[in-house]
Amino acid sequence: MEVGVQTTVPTEKSDVSVATKTPTTLSSDPIINFARGDPMLYEPYWKNKADRCKMVILGDELMSYFSNALNLCWFLKPELDHAIRKLHRVAGNAETDDRFIVVGNGSTQTYHALLYALSSPGQPEPISVVAAAPFYSSYLEETEFLQSRLYKWVGDANCFDKDGAYIEVVTSPNNPDGSIRATVVNREGGNSIHDLAYYWPQYTPITHKADHDVMLFTFSKATGHAGSRIGWAIIKDKAIAAKMVKFVEVSSIGVSKEAQLRAATILGVISEDCQNPGLEEENFFEYGRRMMSDRWKKLREVVMKSNGAFVLPEYPRDYCKFTDGYTDSNPAFAWLRCKEGLNCEKLLREECRIITRGGTSFGVEETYSRVSMLCSDAEFDFMLERLSTIKI
Amino acid sequence: MEVGVQTTVPTEKSDVSVATKTPTTLSSDPIINFARGDPMLYEPYWKNKADRCKMVILGDELMSYFSNALNLCWFLKPELDHAIRKLHRVAGNAETDDRFIVVGNGSTQTYHALLYALSSPGQPEPISVVAAAPFYSSYLEETEFLQSRLYKWVGDANCFDKDGAYIEVVTSPNNPDGSIRATVVNREGGNSIHDLAYYWPQYTPITHKADHDVMLFTFSKATGHAGSRIGWAIIKDKAIAAKMVKFVEVSSIGVSKEAQLRAATILGVISEDCQNPGLEEENFFEYGRRMMSDRWKKLREVVMKSNGAFVLPEYPRDYCKFTDGYTDSNPAFAWLRCKEGLNCEKLLREECRIITRGGTSFGVEETYSRVSMLCSDAEFDFMLERLSTIKI
Repeated sequence: MEVGVQTTVPTEKSDVSVATKTPTTLSSDPIINFARGDPMLYEPYWKNKADRCKMVILGDELMSYFSNALNLCWFLKPELDHAIRKLHRVAGNAETDDRFIVVGNGSTQTYHALLYALSSPGQPEPISVVAAAPFYSSYLEETEFLQSRLYKWVGDANCFDKDGAYIEVVTSPNNPDGSIRATVVNREGGNSIHDLAYYWPQYTPITHKADHDVMLFTFSKATGHAGSRIGWAIIKDKAIAAKMVKFVEVSSIGVSKEAQLRAATILGVISEDCQNPGLEEENFFEYGRRMMSDRWKKLREVVMKSNGAFVLPEYPRDYCKFTDGYTDSNPAFAWLRCKEGLNCEKLLREECRIITRGGTSFGVEETYSRVSMLCSDAEFDFMLERLSTIKI
Repeated sequence: MEVGVQTTVPTEKSDVSVATKTPTTLSSDPIINFARGDPMLYEPYWKNKADRCKMVILGDELMSYFSNALNLCWFLKPELDHAIRKLHRVAGNAETDDRFIVVGNGSTQTYHALLYALSSPGQPEPISVVAAAPFYSSYLEETEFLQSRLYKWVGDANCFDKDGAYIEVVTSPNNPDGSIRATVVNREGGNSIHDLAYYWPQYTPITHKADHDVMLFTFSKATGHAGSRIGWAIIKDKAIAAKMVKFVEVSSIGVSKEAQLRAATILGVISEDCQNPGLEEENFFEYGRRMMSDRWKKLREVVMKSNGAFVLPEYPRDYCKFTDGYTDSNPAFAWLRCKEGLNCEKLLREECRIITRGGTSFGVEETYSRVSMLCSDAEFDFMLERLSTIKI
């Protein structure tokens, strides 16, 4: 059996953990990487829509820096602006009326833009950035790597007790553990960044239309098109949106128009399918939910047979307004816990030859490790096979 | 006469000066913006090649984060890597053998990546960043805006006399004044960034194959496709290239694959045309040089008739290896100087209703101002008309 997978030991903390890697086949018992969140599970769906989502660009198109000089976010293609607002209306997952959309090179860039937008050059010390543990492992590195005097990573929001201004990052559903979250600090002087990358019907029940001041989404996790590097922020306050636009200007003078038009096309097709349901064909969210639900069922079966070697979180069923019925949570990552005193990441690497991302990267104990549920079918089946052989 | 132009007063220092703008027609004597470098003059050329440069992307393509996991720059599409190296060989303007190519979201992001790659977290104080005045007006803002502890903008390299490590940015041909440049500090502990955005046959004679340790190029100025946000660095040292890759990973997890493939297509067409000259058709560089040379001729005529109100720099003719003959310099910007004691930017704005970028933005006197030569034909003609009416 040949499956194209990666064999590196991850040295990075983002959802791509690469540096040096050697693709290989699964013969001769190689190491398989589930530490990163490359969302390849949706590829078969888009293969079926390959032609309908076709994008054609001629040699003289999209040449200017400017997309819409009249818009606050002057590099945002109006087609993408429109497609984003429409999809959120269709999915019912976020309020976009009277909000500014700021597009970025991935939601990663919009996160950086927000650190800049929510901090002030004049402050005597950097503003504290916190997130409740377990938190997305990249926040720390993204916040710290340029050693800015504007902001600094302080860590677990549950332990934060400093007075004054702060930024709390709230990821909901959470990466890595899939939990539904709200701010935990709730003190004066706080701003929050709501990272809603996984607040889509395939991952979690859409219980309400989110309407926070600052919300982040990403094309990568919404549809699986990670290679396009399109993320967006939905922002209530004009001054904050303007500072984000400034950040993207000084960092990269905007965002690829080709990628923006591609995202507009794909998001448009999803909206259209949801609004005009065919008799037999699933829309993208239905397909995604079925895939994820199936994977979670299989994973839970394997974990149940592990005789307590591993435990998975349980999620409450909830009423999903998009689906119009009660649905389960099927997070993009499995947050595995092994027995007390054991190092889960090490155990999985040594016993199953599976690379995952250990709890310490997310600010918690090493008994936890995060496993991507977004890989291709073949990789997922192989992961289950490996997990089911473990003997502790 | 109707020409789509911008009417804002620029508040920014990059080659896009936007924030709030109102497109308008040229009727009723509006203000025209030549402060920014949106390279629209090449659009008619690409209109003729619209179909040959057509790019088609299907719904399921380019989905993964990864472009080539075996490559140091794992997000660089091999097609773009190949097209970049080939075009540099064809143009003869830069050595790429035994070099690493690192792609970025515009050369702006590669500049940021280099500041990160050439500085060290362990240093007691930020590394100094310098450039000889007049320098590209964005360097200051790009270097300073996140208030990093890793590096700081110090200003004019001609006045730099500090010991220890430093980074010198050398733009050649220079933005704003079109001069050919080399490092001016030349002390131990220095690293240089050679920004060769304009080292292409349409702007300047290609006198030699540049082979600096660190060289930057950008799709925007090479071909006019500014909307794609593709820049690249050619790097000799593996460790520096690896740090740049890390920067792009933490900043934006790579670069849009759609934009990369588009750039690969366009650069490929240029190379092919240069290698297989038709009997009548010009290749891109010949077209660009003819356009730029024609504009410079017209501008010099207007300036000559200004009775000394304005002066333009003179550039030596030199032997261009690409053209195989002596050619003129036709810089992307005109570096206008007005009479001593006058503010050139203000003069142009008030007397000609032309927005340009004044000398102080580039670290020199206000008697200078920079005028973009890359606008559309209609805008350029209108600028000449305005300039020729001036009475001082």
